[in-house]
Amino acid sequence: MKSFVNYPENSDFSIHNIPFGVAVFNKEYIACCTRIGDMVIDLATLYDYGFFDDIEGLDDNVFEAYTLNEFIELGKPVTNAVRERIQELLDEESKLARDEKTIEECFYNLDQVKMMMPVHVPNYTDFYSSIEHATNVGKMFRDPANALLPNWKHLPVGYHGRASSIVVSGSEIHRPKGQMKPADAEKPIFGPSKQLDFELEMAFIVNKNTEMGESISTAEAEDAIFGMVLFNDWSARDIQSWEYVPLGPFLGKNFGSSVSPWVVTLEALNPFRVSSPTQDPEVLDYLKFEGDKNFDINLEVYLQPENGDENLICKSNYKFMYWNMAQQLAHHTVNGCNVEVGDMYASGTISGKDENSFGSMLELTWRGQNPLKLNNRTERKFIEDNDTVIMRGYAEKNGVRVGFGEVSGKILPAN
Amino acid sequence: MKSFVNYPENSDFSIHNIPFGVAVFNKEYIACCTRIGDMVIDLATLYDYGFFDDIEGLDDNVFEAYTLNEFIELGKPVTNAVRERIQELLDEESKLARDEKTIEECFYNLDQVKMMMPVHVPNYTDFYSSIEHATNVGKMFRDPANALLPNWKHLPVGYHGRASSIVVSGSEIHRPKGQMKPADAEKPIFGPSKQLDFELEMAFIVNKNTEMGESISTAEAEDAIFGMVLFNDWSARDIQSWEYVPLGPFLGKNFGSSVSPWVVTLEALNPFRVSSPTQDPEVLDYLKFEGDKNFDINLEVYLQPENGDENLICKSNYKFMYWNMAQQLAHHTVNGCNVEVGDMYASGTISGKDENSFGSMLELTWRGQNPLKLNNRTERKFIEDNDTVIMRGYAEKNGVRVGFGEVSGKILPAN
Repeated sequence: MKSFVNYPENSDFSIHNIPFGVAVFNKEYIACCTRIGDMVIDLATLYDYGFFDDIEGLDDNVFEAYTLNEFIELGKPVTNAVRERIQELLDEESKLARDEKTIEECFYNLDQVKMMMPVHVPNYTDFYSSIEHATNVGKMFRDPANALLPNWKHLPVGYHGRASSIVVSGSEIHRPKGQMKPADAEKPIFGPSKQLDFELEMAFIVNKNTEMGESISTAEAEDAIFGMVLFNDWSARDIQSWEYVPLGPFLGKNFGSSVSPWVVTLEALNPFRVSSPTQDPEVLDYLKFEGDKNFDINLEVYLQPENGDENLICKSNYKFMYWNMAQQLAHHTVNGCNVEVGDMYASGTISGKDENSFGSMLELTWRGQNPLKLNNRTERKFIEDNDTVIMRGYAEKNGVRVGFGEVSGKILPAN
Repeated sequence: MKSFVNYPENSDFSIHNIPFGVAVFNKEYIACCTRIGDMVIDLATLYDYGFFDDIEGLDDNVFEAYTLNEFIELGKPVTNAVRERIQELLDEESKLARDEKTIEECFYNLDQVKMMMPVHVPNYTDFYSSIEHATNVGKMFRDPANALLPNWKHLPVGYHGRASSIVVSGSEIHRPKGQMKPADAEKPIFGPSKQLDFELEMAFIVNKNTEMGESISTAEAEDAIFGMVLFNDWSARDIQSWEYVPLGPFLGKNFGSSVSPWVVTLEALNPFRVSSPTQDPEVLDYLKFEGDKNFDINLEVYLQPENGDENLICKSNYKFMYWNMAQQLAHHTVNGCNVEVGDMYASGTISGKDENSFGSMLELTWRGQNPLKLNNRTERKFIEDNDTVIMRGYAEKNGVRVGFGEVSGKILPAN
């Protein structure tokens, strides 16, 4: 496949990708869109021009919308047909390639668009599915000899997060204030968090509504997953460590989470499937699965101080995940919990074995013991005011590249 | 105040109440409504007839809706004016009292209506604010000598719950299946929960959207609270105890929560304000508050086996709450977490000091050690299939009664 739109070889948005998002075009018009190279394509107008007319099940212009929810609810047969149609249209031999009027109407340069949240998120769950991350945290906060808790290898541990404060890449986040109890203090104190952290995660988005009492099996799960985004689960470690026993993380997390604007479909990620780490002990039947359910996605985290350059501080990979998405969704629904279109399910911090693959400052600096040295000659134990954290992710194989772009977020001083 | 609608002295829905809900009328027409005695009043048609014409800020017929969200977002000046107008209209001296046509069009008997969820719930948080409940749980599962965790008296502990599975009273709930690890088992097992429980709670509903980074102080909090409902936080104890360390309750809770259909406003509850239990140690500044922020609301739980009578198994009171709603909302937002219209914030199990005031089977039977004897000569350690749990709540003072009606839910066998 070769497109009439030119883009560099290392573009995340090759013709093999065709992700979906929502954009404000020229500050005035909002519609669902896709992207190739650095061109953003207005799908609502493309629909009006009849390019999707013969796609069965696509009866309304669901792209005339502020979110992708209506589109993704149509399910895989329709959303895959749309994605494949877009690939055909972008081919250098297509009729669109010579249709200057449509191109002028529907194709925008990146600088003409502002990306919005791709979906409305009715429910958000965060898992804890990297064995390296869970082990690191267990070593630091509990018992180095028994870092993993007894349940960890038997079920994908997760908890409900805050849906209201998930924002799109580029949104600024205020440093949270809160209660914390320094180790040497007798009583808790109140103030801006001094241990603000990121967590390198990915999240998947569900494309269907289920009824309460209904479950989704590991075999059915991938049909219910539209695609994935990069996810930064900002965390205030000092607030979190004082509050989280016994009911879990709360104000240490719910002040904000950032996501990348482009939803990359599971179909675009298919070429990058890999097997998962071996699960030992064997899991219960409802968590068993067949085939390669993991994905080889390179992940990077950059820290950029104000007026400074980007510093690459972490190189990890989604393939390290112990629990896969199919297991996460099967576990989440095995008790009859219903899911909704647009639900977001995050992976938990994705750490690898190497020290430079740890997906949080907490792990990278080992609780602040080994500060990171930045190229502007400053050091970081945690994230400082006006720092920007940028996460990037892409898969690459046999010359085919499919990526997520980035999720970026700047920390402003506390209000 | 005396209404032209007759109702018994012990009706929860006196002219002093005027709660709000959403009903299906005659199986075909949905609108927001209020209730007096056993009459349900269609507010959308009442609006069309001009009875609210002069209320400032009520420009659209927000009662023509499937949820109360649009109405409550108008804020207290409007929602209070509407409530007071309804009280005037229901007075025996009002013009409505002699307007037979309007009464015939807008007033329905209870058996002509089916109540729906009163609000769309964008986010749901569950607190843990009864000191008696937290102490009971701490004694059973941790250390009887140090039952309360160190953070408990310093902040209103809470966690995010699942919004998608909150259902209205009368909805049946399937017994959840899941992973659990019996004390004598070497490995976890999978199956229907054997320790299904209720939790007697109340929840408040927020009437505004805030921006990320914004906080709501204890002084501002009650202006942001539209009203309250009864809340049954169904809990599968065996699933919960295996999963909840370290990230909190998840599948042990998210299979379903039940709420009463009528939202009782804070204004209707004003006459029943009482002071809270003394908080010692003193709380941090952002949790301090002035005035009586607690409410004297009698709470009862009934267990009804299939084909059996109701058994009163718990008598508690909302006034036992250690942390009040203003503190809960101030804490929740002190880190800049944004709230949304319709958000539901539940209290946590409301237990008192007496053994018959404990708000869950876990506490009433002390983990199953002392089964409850029912009047059909059966016993219960936890909730069995086809049992119905009914919670009722009302406030009463100087002959004025304002109540919530009930939240009822039947447990069906596992799917």
